[in-house]
Amino acid sequence: MTYHALTEAEAIAYARQLPDLFTEGSELVSREIGDGNLNLVFHISEPSTGKSIILKQALPYAKVVGESWPLTLDRARIESEALMIQESLCPDLVPHVHAYEPELALTVMEDLSDHIIMRRGLIEGNRYPRFAGDIGRFLAHTLFYTSDLGMNQQEKKERVKRFINPELCKITEDLIFDDPYTNSPNNNVPPAIRDAVEQVWADTALHLEVAILRDKFLTHAQALLHGDLHTGSIFIKPDSTKVIDPEFAYYGPMGFDIGAVFANLLLNFAAQEGWSRDEASRSDYRAYLTGTIRDTWTTFEQEFRTLWNDHGVDRMAATPGYQDWYMQQVLRDAFGYTGSKMVRRVHGLAQVADINKLEDEAAKERAQRIALQIGTSLIKFNRQADSIEQLLDIAEKAVQ
Amino acid sequence: MTYHALTEAEAIAYARQLPDLFTEGSELVSREIGDGNLNLVFHISEPSTGKSIILKQALPYAKVVGESWPLTLDRARIESEALMIQESLCPDLVPHVHAYEPELALTVMEDLSDHIIMRRGLIEGNRYPRFAGDIGRFLAHTLFYTSDLGMNQQEKKERVKRFINPELCKITEDLIFDDPYTNSPNNNVPPAIRDAVEQVWADTALHLEVAILRDKFLTHAQALLHGDLHTGSIFIKPDSTKVIDPEFAYYGPMGFDIGAVFANLLLNFAAQEGWSRDEASRSDYRAYLTGTIRDTWTTFEQEFRTLWNDHGVDRMAATPGYQDWYMQQVLRDAFGYTGSKMVRRVHGLAQVADINKLEDEAAKERAQRIALQIGTSLIKFNRQADSIEQLLDIAEKAVQ
Repeated sequence: MTYHALTEAEAIAYARQLPDLFTEGSELVSREIGDGNLNLVFHISEPSTGKSIILKQALPYAKVVGESWPLTLDRARIESEALMIQESLCPDLVPHVHAYEPELALTVMEDLSDHIIMRRGLIEGNRYPRFAGDIGRFLAHTLFYTSDLGMNQQEKKERVKRFINPELCKITEDLIFDDPYTNSPNNNVPPAIRDAVEQVWADTALHLEVAILRDKFLTHAQALLHGDLHTGSIFIKPDSTKVIDPEFAYYGPMGFDIGAVFANLLLNFAAQEGWSRDEASRSDYRAYLTGTIRDTWTTFEQEFRTLWNDHGVDRMAATPGYQDWYMQQVLRDAFGYTGSKMVRRVHGLAQVADINKLEDEAAKERAQRIALQIGTSLIKFNRQADSIEQLLDIAEKAVQ
Repeated sequence: MTYHALTEAEAIAYARQLPDLFTEGSELVSREIGDGNLNLVFHISEPSTGKSIILKQALPYAKVVGESWPLTLDRARIESEALMIQESLCPDLVPHVHAYEPELALTVMEDLSDHIIMRRGLIEGNRYPRFAGDIGRFLAHTLFYTSDLGMNQQEKKERVKRFINPELCKITEDLIFDDPYTNSPNNNVPPAIRDAVEQVWADTALHLEVAILRDKFLTHAQALLHGDLHTGSIFIKPDSTKVIDPEFAYYGPMGFDIGAVFANLLLNFAAQEGWSRDEASRSDYRAYLTGTIRDTWTTFEQEFRTLWNDHGVDRMAATPGYQDWYMQQVLRDAFGYTGSKMVRRVHGLAQVADINKLEDEAAKERAQRIALQIGTSLIKFNRQADSIEQLLDIAEKAVQ
C-alpha cells in the first residue's frame, strides 16, 4: 500500500480488516474529526456494539495560520513508537496503540472521545484532582526509564538514534526559542501590548538565558521527551488522564516536558483575569492551578527519587550528592522552559485559547501582560532556582 | 567481498587494484605493523617509486591485557567518516583517506611513516613548536564546524545519528569514569601508591564531580569529537602534526577532546620525575609542556571565537554574553576531563608509557603520585574554573 491520504471509505475498509476489533460484516461509521492542519483523524465506530477506534494518519504537510510547508511522514513512526514506549511505562496514561502502518503513516489507537481536551476543561473552570498525581507519575516514569539512570546506557544510545527528529525540533527551535525574542514576521504581536513585547525584544539579559536554554534543547540528550506536553495534548475527565500526540518526541532535557505542563497551567492562571466571575473565584481557581503545579512537581520528584533509589541501573548514580545535584538541574530547567513556553504563547505564532478566547479586551491585555511577566521572570531566574515555591511566588507576585 | 581478516597477499592484491596509486605491474611489498589488538595495519609500498599507503582493517574483537571481547566492525565506518569530515575542515592535520571498503571494514589512507607517535617523541624529550598551533586549530575547526554553532542544526542532528557509537563509548564510560573510582578488577593498581588510590576510592566529593562529568559525556551532544585524542593518537614531526585513529568519534562535550590533549601533556609533565637528567632540565621541559598547554588553549579559544564571529550560522549565537558563557563551560569541562583522563592512566586498566616505562621505581612512584594529585585537583576544581592559568597553577603546585 503506497502512501496516499485515506478517504472515509478507505478508513472503514482498513478498520474492518483489523483483527479482534469489530464484528465481521457489521456496519461501521467514520467521522473525520481532525483539524486538517497536520493529520487526518478518523473516528470509526460500530453502532451495533458501541465499539470505536481512532485512525490517525499523518499528512505530508503542515498548515499553521494559513501557511503550508512540507513535513516528514516519519513523525507518524516517531509518534507511534513513543506512544508504545510510554504505554509500556504508564499503561493507564496514554491511548493504547492497536496497530501502526508505516507505509500509510497511520496509527490505530484507542478512542478517547469520552475525555475532553484539558485546555478546554480548564477554560470551562473544571478541576481535575487526579491530574497532578497522574501527570507527575507520567513525567517521573517516562523520563526516568528512558534516561541513562533507568535503562541500559548502550540501548539508550540506539534509542536516541531512533528519535532523531530534526523537522519537528526545528519548529520548536524557531517558534519557542527564536522568533519571540526578535521582530520576526512569524510573530503575532497583539497591538495592545506592543510596548511590553518590544521590551522583550530589547532585553539582552533575557536573550542570554534563552540562548542557554536553546543550547540545552539542541544538545542535551537526557531522556525521551513527549516534546509538546501542553494542555492541548492531554485528554482528561475527572477519573482519567491521557497524554496524546507525541510527534515531537526526541531526546532532550527533562525540564522541557515539565515546563510545558507548568507553562500551560500558568497561561490559564493568567487568563483568569477574564474567565473568573469575581475576585474570590479568581483567586480560588488560581490557588487550584498553583496547587496543581506544586503537587505535580512534588509527585514527580518523589516518584523520580524513588525510582532512582529502587530501580537505578547505574552504580555511579548512588554517588552521594549526585541525585540532589541532578534534581536541582531538572528543576532549574523546568523554570526556564516554563518561562519559554509562556512567552511564545503571548506574541508568537501559535497562541492559546485560554487567553485568545477572552472577549473582554482589557482582561485579555491584562492576561497577556501577566503571562509575559511570569514567563520572562522565570527565564531570568532559572539558573538560581532551588525550590518549586519560588516558581509559585513569581506567579503570585505577577497578579498582586 | 564478505568480511574476513586479510592476509598480506590479499592486502597487496587489494592495493594493486586501487586507481591512481601504484604503477601497473610493479612489485608491491606489505608489512603488517599493527599491534594486533584491535586492527590489522598493512604498510604497502612500491620499492620502484618509493610510494606507500596504509591499509587499516578493523578486527571483530579487542584484546586488552590478554582479555578479548567482541567489538563492532562499524567502528571502521565511524573512523573513516570522521577522518573525512576532519580532512574537509583541517586537510593538513589528518591522514588523507584514499578509499573505504565497508564490507571489509577497511580504510586505505596516507602513509605517515615519516612521523613518529607523539607520546614517544615526548618521552625522548623532543620539542614540537608547531604542535600547540596545529592542535589548537584542529580542535577549534573540528569542534566548531560540527556543532550547532557552525553547521546547519538539522543536518547536525542527522550527523549525531550517524555517529551513535555505543560500544566504543562504553569503553570510555567504564575505563575512564567508573573503574578508577572503585576497587574494580579492571584496575591495575601499582602497589607502591595503593594508599593514594584508596584515597581516590574513598573520596565522595571527587566521585560527585566524576558522576557529573560522566553525565555530560553520556548526554551532551555538543560536537563531533575525536573521542580518544591522547598523544598516542597523534603522529608528529617538527614540521607536521597528524591526528589519527578517530574510532571513538561520537557527539559529546568539546572539553573531552581538549582535556585528552592536556591530560597527556601533564602525564608526561609528571613523568619528568624520571626522564629528566637533572632539576634544571626537568623544570625546563616542564615549562615547555605547560607552555604548550597554554598556547593550545589560547589558539583554540582565539580561533573558535573568530570562527564564531565570522562564520556562525546561528542568529542567536550573537546574543551578548553567550559566547563568553559558552567558552567558560568548555574550559570548565576541559579541566574536568583533563583530570579524569589523568587519573585513569595512573591505576586504571590502560596506562601510559610516559610513566610505566620509567625504570627508577622511586621516580615512577613520584610521577604516579603527582599525576594523581593533578588529576584529582582538576576534577574537584572543574566547575569553578575560569582561566587556563588555574590549570597550570594546579600542575605546578603538584611538583613544588
